[in-house]
Amino acid sequence: MTQTAPKTPTKSVSLDALYSLIREDLKRVDTLILDRVKSEVPLIHDIARHIIASGGKRIRPALTLISSQLCGYKGERHVALAASVEFIHTATLLHDDVVDESKLRRGLATANELFGNKASVLVGDFMFSQAFQLMVGDGNIRVLAILSDASAIISKGEVMQLMNEGNPETTIENYLQVISSKTAALFSAACELGGVVAGNDQWANLLHEFGSYIGIAFQLVDDALDYAANQETLGKTVGDDFHEGKITLPVIHSYSKSTKEEQAFWNRTLGELEQKPEDFVRAMEIITKYDGIGQTLTMAEYYCSKAREALAPFPASPAKSAMLEIVDFCVARAY
Amino acid sequence: MTQTAPKTPTKSVSLDALYSLIREDLKRVDTLILDRVKSEVPLIHDIARHIIASGGKRIRPALTLISSQLCGYKGERHVALAASVEFIHTATLLHDDVVDESKLRRGLATANELFGNKASVLVGDFMFSQAFQLMVGDGNIRVLAILSDASAIISKGEVMQLMNEGNPETTIENYLQVISSKTAALFSAACELGGVVAGNDQWANLLHEFGSYIGIAFQLVDDALDYAANQETLGKTVGDDFHEGKITLPVIHSYSKSTKEEQAFWNRTLGELEQKPEDFVRAMEIITKYDGIGQTLTMAEYYCSKAREALAPFPASPAKSAMLEIVDFCVARAY
Repeated sequence: MTQTAPKTPTKSVSLDALYSLIREDLKRVDTLILDRVKSEVPLIHDIARHIIASGGKRIRPALTLISSQLCGYKGERHVALAASVEFIHTATLLHDDVVDESKLRRGLATANELFGNKASVLVGDFMFSQAFQLMVGDGNIRVLAILSDASAIISKGEVMQLMNEGNPETTIENYLQVISSKTAALFSAACELGGVVAGNDQWANLLHEFGSYIGIAFQLVDDALDYAANQETLGKTVGDDFHEGKITLPVIHSYSKSTKEEQAFWNRTLGELEQKPEDFVRAMEIITKYDGIGQTLTMAEYYCSKAREALAPFPASPAKSAMLEIVDFCVARAY
Repeated sequence: MTQTAPKTPTKSVSLDALYSLIREDLKRVDTLILDRVKSEVPLIHDIARHIIASGGKRIRPALTLISSQLCGYKGERHVALAASVEFIHTATLLHDDVVDESKLRRGLATANELFGNKASVLVGDFMFSQAFQLMVGDGNIRVLAILSDASAIISKGEVMQLMNEGNPETTIENYLQVISSKTAALFSAACELGGVVAGNDQWANLLHEFGSYIGIAFQLVDDALDYAANQETLGKTVGDDFHEGKITLPVIHSYSKSTKEEQAFWNRTLGELEQKPEDFVRAMEIITKYDGIGQTLTMAEYYCSKAREALAPFPASPAKSAMLEIVDFCVARAY
């Protein structure tokens, strides 16, 4: 019941090796993306630039680029496909930000303030369509199958997550299914594409596995960070999940250990979404008491080790080392 | 300035011939659609069934089916492609219904009450992904190009429409670009697919034109009906466009003729969205005074005649007659 001391990473972990290997390719991805959103419709241009210029780590397109390199691919297709992956991701981000009416009525909505719900939805749709146009430009039906399947799985996962909202009795299995779908599906597709453009089916399958495992680990760490007060520097707003009634592993774990009084707290704050200003601190106290963060990060470590295994059959190369560093970075950013 | 007497249609117009020709195919489309939404996620199933079971004329998939027949196509591909077209349409409907936050703050939101914004967005995404999976199943890259281009144009048109909201000075050209994009793009794609599966490029191009013209006419009539008080029986809620501040041809035409006092009325009700209960009646009075409905329907008639021309090169057949009846029906439903 006491908190596990966070494991100190044995070395300093960064993504520098990754970005130095793919720097030129990533620039071309960015150029292509910005070129595609140079729409004659100003609002599309504004929102797209806002989303894309706000940067982030570009981890998904980076995975497509480095996976292609890992497989020794020398052509040009990976750039458009990486852009396609990023378009799907930004579309999902925009749609994720749409605020539910029922929540607005509770006066809790703060997200999505710049442009409004409707614009987010429609520009998200525009970005989805850009993703598909880029794939059609590539012209390979397997690529289209991989990314349209990923899109279907993502939307299904998002709906499952919506259905779980406010239900702290959500099972770990259900939660894992949600994050496998909403997050890991695009990670695995992004990586698989590297093997596909290189024309190596066996490697494509291994890369699919690799992407799936680090996608799950990545989301687990994200969900842990949402309850980690000292992580504001990472650019993630702490407490979002709590305020939205989103059920994640730190809560699921803690709820299962909670006293009756603590369960009543979760049911009020997440189930009924009746939250007082001091409730988030109380939530973090309960999570700390049952080591909800430690448990979540331990599970993330497990998926990271599976990701490393998936890479084992690949011959040593700078790309492989960089990909192993992505795995290290995935959990290390939590400390 | 006086109202043009509505032209009485010379014969009773129905879509009976169309539906008797495609009855079996349309049943297979419905079965396929319902099969694809038999998701293990109950909310997807519920919303999809709600949208799809609520029926409507299924005009878009019907166009794919009858166009295939017109081109003498004997295969099976048209069924999945018609379902794909309908999935894109229902996704668009769901996303169209999403309510803007800014409007909610004005307390005007009534749409989308059953499921909420977020569910509509995510299930809409699911339906888009089903559309693309069906196309990928077809395996033809030209089909994918047609429908991904249509999706891109639709989303661009929806964003343009959003930008025009509340601006009664929107030009006719701009309005026509909006409806060509948001509505006619899917009609033209739906028709073109009939020529594509039949492997006849020239016919595919003519069908694209045909679909584009009736799509524009269809939307013009829809926009006219929104100000036609006696049309409630058609299942369309009168006044939606007015209440949402959506700028359509009846308003654009009337605004251009309006006195200063009338322009002030439009600016208050549509520009500021400050509406009193009696305002819709006043809006209809001004539109009637300047024959806004008559002008809109006259333009629809013009596009219908262009649609008939596009069909002229096709040899006579029951399918061709049925398609000409769709053209007649398009405007006749307004009377």
